[in-house]
Amino acid sequence: MQQYRNDYSEGAAPQILEALARTNLEQTVGYGEDAHCARAAELIRAEVGLDDAYVRFIPGGTAANILAISCLTEEYEGPILAADAHPTIHETGAIEGAGRRLLATADPYGLLTPAGADPIWESWRANGSHTTRPGMIYLSDTSELGHVYTAAEFDALCDWADERELAVYVDGARMASAMTAAGADLDIRHIARRATAFTLGGTKNGMLFGEAMVVNPASPRGARMVERLPYLIKRAGSLMAKGRLMGVQYETAFDPATDDGSGEVLYWQLARHANACALELKRQMTGAGFEPFIQTTGNQQFFWVTPDEGQRLACDFGAELQVQPDPAGAGRVVARFVTSWATDLAGITELGEAARALRG
Amino acid sequence: MQQYRNDYSEGAAPQILEALARTNLEQTVGYGEDAHCARAAELIRAEVGLDDAYVRFIPGGTAANILAISCLTEEYEGPILAADAHPTIHETGAIEGAGRRLLATADPYGLLTPAGADPIWESWRANGSHTTRPGMIYLSDTSELGHVYTAAEFDALCDWADERELAVYVDGARMASAMTAAGADLDIRHIARRATAFTLGGTKNGMLFGEAMVVNPASPRGARMVERLPYLIKRAGSLMAKGRLMGVQYETAFDPATDDGSGEVLYWQLARHANACALELKRQMTGAGFEPFIQTTGNQQFFWVTPDEGQRLACDFGAELQVQPDPAGAGRVVARFVTSWATDLAGITELGEAARALRG
Amino acid sequence: MQQYRNDYSEGAAPQILEALARTNLEQTVGYGEDAHCARAAELIRAEVGLDDAYVRFIPGGTAANILAISCLTEEYEGPILAADAHPTIHETGAIEGAGRRLLATADPYGLLTPAGADPIWESWRANGSHTTRPGMIYLSDTSELGHVYTAAEFDALCDWADERELAVYVDGARMASAMTAAGADLDIRHIARRATAFTLGGTKNGMLFGEAMVVNPASPRGARMVERLPYLIKRAGSLMAKGRLMGVQYETAFDPATDDGSGEVLYWQLARHANACALELKRQMTGAGFEPFIQTTGNQQFFWVTPDEGQRLACDFGAELQVQPDPAGAGRVVARFVTSWATDLAGITELGEAARALRG
Amino acid sequence: MQQYRNDYSEGAAPQILEALARTNLEQTVGYGEDAHCARAAELIRAEVGLDDAYVRFIPGGTAANILAISCLTEEYEGPILAADAHPTIHETGAIEGAGRRLLATADPYGLLTPAGADPIWESWRANGSHTTRPGMIYLSDTSELGHVYTAAEFDALCDWADERELAVYVDGARMASAMTAAGADLDIRHIARRATAFTLGGTKNGMLFGEAMVVNPASPRGARMVERLPYLIKRAGSLMAKGRLMGVQYETAFDPATDDGSGEVLYWQLARHANACALELKRQMTGAGFEPFIQTTGNQQFFWVTPDEGQRLACDFGAELQVQPDPAGAGRVVARFVTSWATDLAGITELGEAARALRG
Repeated sequence: MQQYRNDYSEGAAPQILEALARTNLEQTVGYGEDAHCARAAELIRAEVGLDDAYVRFIPGGTAANILAISCLTEEYEGPILAADAHPTIHETGAIEGAGRRLLATADPYGLLTPAGADPIWESWRANGSHTTRPGMIYLSDTSELGHVYTAAEFDALCDWADERELAVYVDGARMASAMTAAGADLDIRHIARRATAFTLGGTKNGMLFGEAMVVNPASPRGARMVERLPYLIKRAGSLMAKGRLMGVQYETAFDPATDDGSGEVLYWQLARHANACALELKRQMTGAGFEPFIQTTGNQQFFWVTPDEGQRLACDFGAELQVQPDPAGAGRVVARFVTSWATDLAGITELGEAARALRG
Repeated sequence: MQQYRNDYSEGAAPQILEALARTNLEQTVGYGEDAHCARAAELIRAEVGLDDAYVRFIPGGTAANILAISCLTEEYEGPILAADAHPTIHETGAIEGAGRRLLATADPYGLLTPAGADPIWESWRANGSHTTRPGMIYLSDTSELGHVYTAAEFDALCDWADERELAVYVDGARMASAMTAAGADLDIRHIARRATAFTLGGTKNGMLFGEAMVVNPASPRGARMVERLPYLIKRAGSLMAKGRLMGVQYETAFDPATDDGSGEVLYWQLARHANACALELKRQMTGAGFEPFIQTTGNQQFFWVTPDEGQRLACDFGAELQVQPDPAGAGRVVARFVTSWATDLAGITELGEAARALRG
Repeated sequence: MQQYRNDYSEGAAPQILEALARTNLEQTVGYGEDAHCARAAELIRAEVGLDDAYVRFIPGGTAANILAISCLTEEYEGPILAADAHPTIHETGAIEGAGRRLLATADPYGLLTPAGADPIWESWRANGSHTTRPGMIYLSDTSELGHVYTAAEFDALCDWADERELAVYVDGARMASAMTAAGADLDIRHIARRATAFTLGGTKNGMLFGEAMVVNPASPRGARMVERLPYLIKRAGSLMAKGRLMGVQYETAFDPATDDGSGEVLYWQLARHANACALELKRQMTGAGFEPFIQTTGNQQFFWVTPDEGQRLACDFGAELQVQPDPAGAGRVVARFVTSWATDLAGITELGEAARALRG
Repeated sequence: MQQYRNDYSEGAAPQILEALARTNLEQTVGYGEDAHCARAAELIRAEVGLDDAYVRFIPGGTAANILAISCLTEEYEGPILAADAHPTIHETGAIEGAGRRLLATADPYGLLTPAGADPIWESWRANGSHTTRPGMIYLSDTSELGHVYTAAEFDALCDWADERELAVYVDGARMASAMTAAGADLDIRHIARRATAFTLGGTKNGMLFGEAMVVNPASPRGARMVERLPYLIKRAGSLMAKGRLMGVQYETAFDPATDDGSGEVLYWQLARHANACALELKRQMTGAGFEPFIQTTGNQQFFWVTPDEGQRLACDFGAELQVQPDPAGAGRVVARFVTSWATDLAGITELGEAARALRG
């Protein structure tokens, strides 16, 4: 049966795989200094509306986070981020391994807010060099628990950071889903205009692997990141010999020729499909009587389930179970379902039937 | 014209690319916990003759070195290695970034020897906790300058290390070339028997990317490495979400069905081709009057050239120039040529003609 | 006027300073390998009842924490500790600088509990190598907010840690105060019996500087710490050339000849005086109508004050103000007063008068 | 018998110890923010002729090196230094522990030269972000093997560094000896004018402990160091609670009232005595027929001795033996003798007699 464990269960979108095959025997220089990477960067700059953006390709999401945070902070600084952001739980101390302290707010759902960040800032103001200095904010869009940031939420964070001369980094492992989510009013050009750096995730959006790191060199810490990133990529063991593999993939995903008439290139089309599947999945699950844990139009959907239901949904459909405090006091857990470019929309009915059977 | 810049100029061997395409839409679990990785590990265990070997796949060579050295040493220990080994020059302080001090011998050509290692050991014995403790030896086969270790050389190093209870790590970025080099008497089962850990490089031997890290858990520090590696891979940002990509590639390269009657699986065949091309290249170059820098049967060949010749060979054929002390005192430099699975054997005559023209 | 800012406002207790002067011109070997350090270690072993304890002297408290945590964990492990423990707020990311992630519980008042630690353990159990592995528990006695652990509380923590094979480390920057606090039922021999390692703080108990690190080599991770500590002290830049300075100070503080008839050596006498001053200070403050923030018999006392009162007490008496959620919803802050071996007991009446005037 | 093992065998010069006793019961704020540290900094600024120098006190020499190098480099940069400089051999990987790679030249005797540094610079120019970028030069005066830099040597290094925009750091653990060595033409004002930062060592010049770090904020990386140092001191565990102890010691050593009519303050007088003792020691040893290993007027003296002589001199006089290649091919070793402020000039005759007896 179709699994909803995550958005990296399959290989690559066919167009992308085909491009890799087509260019396979070209001889290129290594380390991302080839023409494919150059053209991919050029296409990304055009797409995000930032002519002088510095673009590098990083093999994975944790590596991208290590590099962004290392580039945007001093050793004695740290990123302000939500308590359940990815680096706080799922990266085995990778950021601490780079010597940085994470400054986690009490914000729930991985959703960073200025109000959550304030106490951290004030603590530094009170303690100065006896404590870690905030150097940046980190947010992921969509957030760890699926939230799609609104333009107002994002601007409030950027305003807050700007006033304090902090860098803004957006972990875009699921950026494509966030930008194409139903009702979303925050677009990639807006992010590019205000963030110091952000990623355009490939791994979770139809590529074999790869995250495009986009840096705005005109932002205060942006120029420093542009200087630091090439060295730190190599030092972190994240410089691919065959960097061109990522160049070819991004070149394809952002190729204007992939526009299917929708006005969008392949990169967004893949995410739009994932989101459509997610909404259908939500329709099936709520139709069966399952209550959403949060309301989101992104490609992760979360529902309150009993532990027994959870076991069944995990076993049959790859749902991932999480412990969250149940407001109903009923001992329920949260089941996560993730859709992707590869999800078969029609096949979701199977899940719907099973869900209705569980609640039948 | 055919370039000899390195062995990672192309994508992947056709059989490997085909396997990736064939398995592309399978849904698997992430992080290398899938069936392809499991089977690849099983095939490698059989090939190297180590039933209980622990096998993990790492995306790149520098990452593999970081992980091996981090796993096999304490923070206050370091690896003994040759002065021009890869981590000393070409990794931007990656090992130091993991907090380890490299203990470089005065051995030339990246070729580690017990005699070179002795003074480092004695310095530690004299200084104790006031200096870095040797924890392992690091060698690469072939070495950074193309040397293919003999069984006697390798055993001497292992004996030396065993007496001191040091781990032995073999960086096998070009292991396939070393094992199939003409006249080589050191085979992979021998290495597996004596080393604590080694890699079977994929990036430079026909895969898109990937290094198989093989650990002998029965060696003293091997069990510790088996415990540490899963955590450190993640912490280093080197755990691929779609780990199965490496599983599929290695599964193909070590598939017994790829035996073409030679008794060897694809992994060795690819290297054997590269080595054959290298010998042809050597024949052409020496025939044109160029003196080899070192005698080797591996896939890297080095020749003394004048600076002018070097510029031409770099420009037309991708030769990489290195400054080495010229014993002839003639101000010559060293030009490196690298062949690979993708090299066109017949096409090497073009280089031969150009070489003869230069010396004509 | 007498200040209560902290317990490191003065130099050293007269007996200790005198010992430094008396031994000043002796020629000794460096790095703590002298006879004074040896004798100090011997006296400490006898005092704590651990014949085979390994004892080293560290110049400061943050350095001691860095070393204990580095010694007792792997790079991918971290210490479980209370949310407001010293390393989480007041050490500028020192532990992260050593590459370790702090695993902070939601326990208030810096007081670690098994119930607080449980969710961290369970999170690791659920996520395995994708998250930081707990390697030890860290507690300080007295705690950051003055709590004196009971024997039952301590044993419950040790039991919890033992079941999970975690090391137990007690930061004893204020151990002397904790051990001699009125009503305390946890003694140093009890701690020595159950902890993997602990410090006997000197800086805050009448020495110029110095923390004695005591390791129980028979505990599971204890032997590893004994091997690692000498190297890591040096690597951390914490090995004093004139290590004998700490030896002389501890030799004096634990000299049986300093027993004044109370049955206790100087080390405990100094703390007992500080605690007596603290109780007198508490008597004066509560007599003036100030409500304690927590009930403690240690040498730190905390009271709810209005912001205006706080400013006055900070200015005139060195009280340190902290923001804590006011249960009365009255916008009060917490004022901390610290007494020491050097506090003039009679002089506390001045504070009492000022306190009564504020509330008059 | 008087030992010559090192210059940190005793406690502190009497005047300094007396000052600690005199100020012992003053109540001051912690962490070096007290009036003694402020006045000591003021006196140092005046002495070195740098009105806007930023001065901080660090407990030890290895900690000072960690901090200077961490402050003056990026993570992917390293210091160029001589092959046998202190951090390369005697600091257990402390600099690597801070993530930095040491870029050691082939210069002998710990004496850095532009010619030695050139190949490292060129290697970086050739390899760019694939290798560690030089960020600074590190030299110690006197050098590890006793060399006293001339003004011309120092200026040549500074010129070389300036052309490349590298910081210049002088490890002054034995700066006082270097500045007062017979025939020395490099003075502290000259160093202050050209270096980015340097230390004025206390530990080896009559203090209990302490190194004054002096930073020229007007130098390019100086301002960055001023911003970074306060945080990194704390993060490194090197911020002393009773920072005033170093303030009191330096305030005394640089107190104009200590001028004994020589025009010099105590700090220089102590070193001048040590140097005078060293020259007397050299006179005795050469008179007995021992050949100096290097010619120096600093407080370390080195002589070629037979292994048997070495054992005797080590045993009776604390000489430290080093293995150095013997140009005479006679298997000799090098014996080091160190004098200090505490050396009894008259007592050196004992060594002379013993030396003559050995050669008799």
